[in-house]
Amino acid sequence: MITSSHPAAIPEAADKHGATKAAPGSRATCDVTRLRIEPLTSEAFAPFGTVIQLEGAHHYPINAGTTERFHALAMTDTDAQGGRTGISLFRGQGFTLPFTLRVMERHPLSSQAFVPLATGAADRYLVVVAPPGVLQTSALRAFLAIGWQGVQYATGVWHHPLIALDRTLDFLVVDRVANDANCDEIVMEAPFIADL
Amino acid sequence: MITSSHPAAIPEAADKHGATKAAPGSRATCDVTRLRIEPLTSEAFAPFGTVIQLEGAHHYPINAGTTERFHALAMTDTDAQGGRTGISLFRGQGFTLPFTLRVMERHPLSSQAFVPLATGAADRYLVVVAPPGVLQTSALRAFLAIGWQGVQYATGVWHHPLIALDRTLDFLVVDRVANDANCDEIVMEAPFIADL
Repeated sequence: MITSSHPAAIPEAADKHGATKAAPGSRATCDVTRLRIEPLTSEAFAPFGTVIQLEGAHHYPINAGTTERFHALAMTDTDAQGGRTGISLFRGQGFTLPFTLRVMERHPLSSQAFVPLATGAADRYLVVVAPPGVLQTSALRAFLAIGWQGVQYATGVWHHPLIALDRTLDFLVVDRVANDANCDEIVMEAPFIADL
Repeated sequence: MITSSHPAAIPEAADKHGATKAAPGSRATCDVTRLRIEPLTSEAFAPFGTVIQLEGAHHYPINAGTTERFHALAMTDTDAQGGRTGISLFRGQGFTLPFTLRVMERHPLSSQAFVPLATGAADRYLVVVAPPGVLQTSALRAFLAIGWQGVQYATGVWHHPLIALDRTLDFLVVDRVANDANCDEIVMEAPFIADL
């Protein structure tokens, strides 16, 4: 959710929808846009891809009942133009909130999935997305992923580079491996500030 | 490493190579075969697939240096006969050692990767494999995976169903999703006992 505001007014003036208003007589020293961070749910994230989590998953016992399979939490889309699917690990620096967003990227040919490893319930990371097509910064959304919640960005979905919060986190990444360009990056004209 | 032995003789009579000998005059009530568990290393596991770990990985900074990418720790092989790649989660019951092996399975059309989630350094699981082709139980190998070490079984490699140790563990699984049969299972004529 997006509103234009003076930075100092952000925490105090936000109403329940994240809307903020400059106090009468205040002078903005620069224009920034606040992006309120939303909880990460499958429903809210559906326009951008898939939340990788157990909630709502189809599951059934295998291995003579000693294992429960939570099936196909995400399906990759990585084979365009001869692409293959690789399993990589991203070690992401920990940032703090509020976080200033300046750049967005997309992989026009493929999905990309992130699942944090060795996390505790208190670990979290920030997911910032915009619909595919021409980047519309007015359509930016920010989500807070908790614990081992993963996300898979659908093909072409704009997203901010990895934003682990509070401490360095490792993510298993399932994405396309090929010898071609599959990443567009845009520096936004004006930054956004993501905060809870 | 495999040796035939009387079960009661296993812990005591094993030499440094895991070889055991029945004590003179002892009477075996059944024949069992001990499989000594080896450390999981990329080199030792190479005939069976890939160890998913940072050691030895090709890595480089991305995202303006805020993320380190450990690239393509494993490459999937899941697209035979129209297969797609899915990301699932297996919740595996915790077992204790020694563990009795009775069954092996393989996926003739595809690789299958396992990476444990939310593990600590003390978490571990057991990996039991045999080369592809006709199952040769004499070629069984057992490996101990520690912490978040993952494995990808190469296409057709025989492996035991998931054996988390000590406590229930969750594994991210990257494997082939398709509406066909892609699992052969064999109950072994005689069990094996895997132990450290």
